[in-house]
Amino acid sequence: MASTTGPEIEKLIQLLARVPGLGPRSARRAALHLIKKKEQLLGPLAEALQLAHDRIMVCGACGNIDTQNPCVICADHKRDDGILVVVEEVSDLWALERAGAVRARYHVLGGVLSPLDGVTPEHLNLAALAVRAADPAVREVILALNATVDGQTTAYYIADMLAHLTHIKVSRLAYGVPVGGELDYLDEGTLSAALKQRTAL
Amino acid sequence: MASTTGPEIEKLIQLLARVPGLGPRSARRAALHLIKKKEQLLGPLAEALQLAHDRIMVCGACGNIDTQNPCVICADHKRDDGILVVVEEVSDLWALERAGAVRARYHVLGGVLSPLDGVTPEHLNLAALAVRAADPAVREVILALNATVDGQTTAYYIADMLAHLTHIKVSRLAYGVPVGGELDYLDEGTLSAALKQRTAL
Repeated sequence: MASTTGPEIEKLIQLLARVPGLGPRSARRAALHLIKKKEQLLGPLAEALQLAHDRIMVCGACGNIDTQNPCVICADHKRDDGILVVVEEVSDLWALERAGAVRARYHVLGGVLSPLDGVTPEHLNLAALAVRAADPAVREVILALNATVDGQTTAYYIADMLAHLTHIKVSRLAYGVPVGGELDYLDEGTLSAALKQRTAL
Repeated sequence: MASTTGPEIEKLIQLLARVPGLGPRSARRAALHLIKKKEQLLGPLAEALQLAHDRIMVCGACGNIDTQNPCVICADHKRDDGILVVVEEVSDLWALERAGAVRARYHVLGGVLSPLDGVTPEHLNLAALAVRAADPAVREVILALNATVDGQTTAYYIADMLAHLTHIKVSRLAYGVPVGGELDYLDEGTLSAALKQRTAL
């Protein structure tokens, strides 16, 4: 390739290939498309990335990312201070916000406990969670962690960590059939959970 | 989303979603990953895009893109001036260069004739091709166009356009079984072509 294109294009392709969702092949296609749409896409994208680089920071209170610290959610006075929703990653926070199911505060752990990958409690944003949960205003901590082994291990660890705070309730998301889901395609674990936690109609 | 993240992140996600290979969902994931890898990926990518925006241009001779004009291929004195390889897009040029099968000159059409999409001969880089092919140094024009209806229509149009140049040979890529291909998975058109153009062993 060195003889076909300049090092600038080669560098761009290599960097694009590291973006999740793109591989070496699609990065080349993406680079060509960007260059073709120079003024409409390449320029604005370069600017948006630079702006993101310069202005985005991690919220000191909850771990969300934003261009302000505290973030818009932490700065929002209309949210319920009594509920703390604990999530693994910022993407989970965004997913819950899209669902719009809860107008409360969040706490981003930055991962889950995973002894095999060397992720121990010290690597997660847990100390700050303990401090926030101890606030007398807090009534409930909802553990909105993934329904994976590591996610649930982390949930039990946090429940244990907060057990001495008798003024708060610690809950987790319900297990069950996803809305629109067909039973035939669901795994046994989900079906068992959905049966066990059946509700009166 | 407006309440979750600042407009800068939202803008970035929207622009990333327009990159081929990424959709609205993967653009969000990509944006988060980029922000997480701020110094290792986000910054360098922003710079590489800006550099590409500022320095990449279309080669005035062949239509390739490069940071120099004429491009490295056109400026390369070791290539055979007698052979002109006509391709649809820059990506096809790159694919042929990766294969390294021909050390000649290229001519990028910028598309194929497609009356249904309103692409007529005036929209393609055809006038320049006629001029280049008329050069007495040229012996052969290889039409390396896609084996699609539009690609082949364009090939016949070009062959017709160059028919008065009796000093050149106009050829096209061979049709046949792809190397490593299994007959069982090939379409009838390819199999018929491969049979018709069988070669002595």
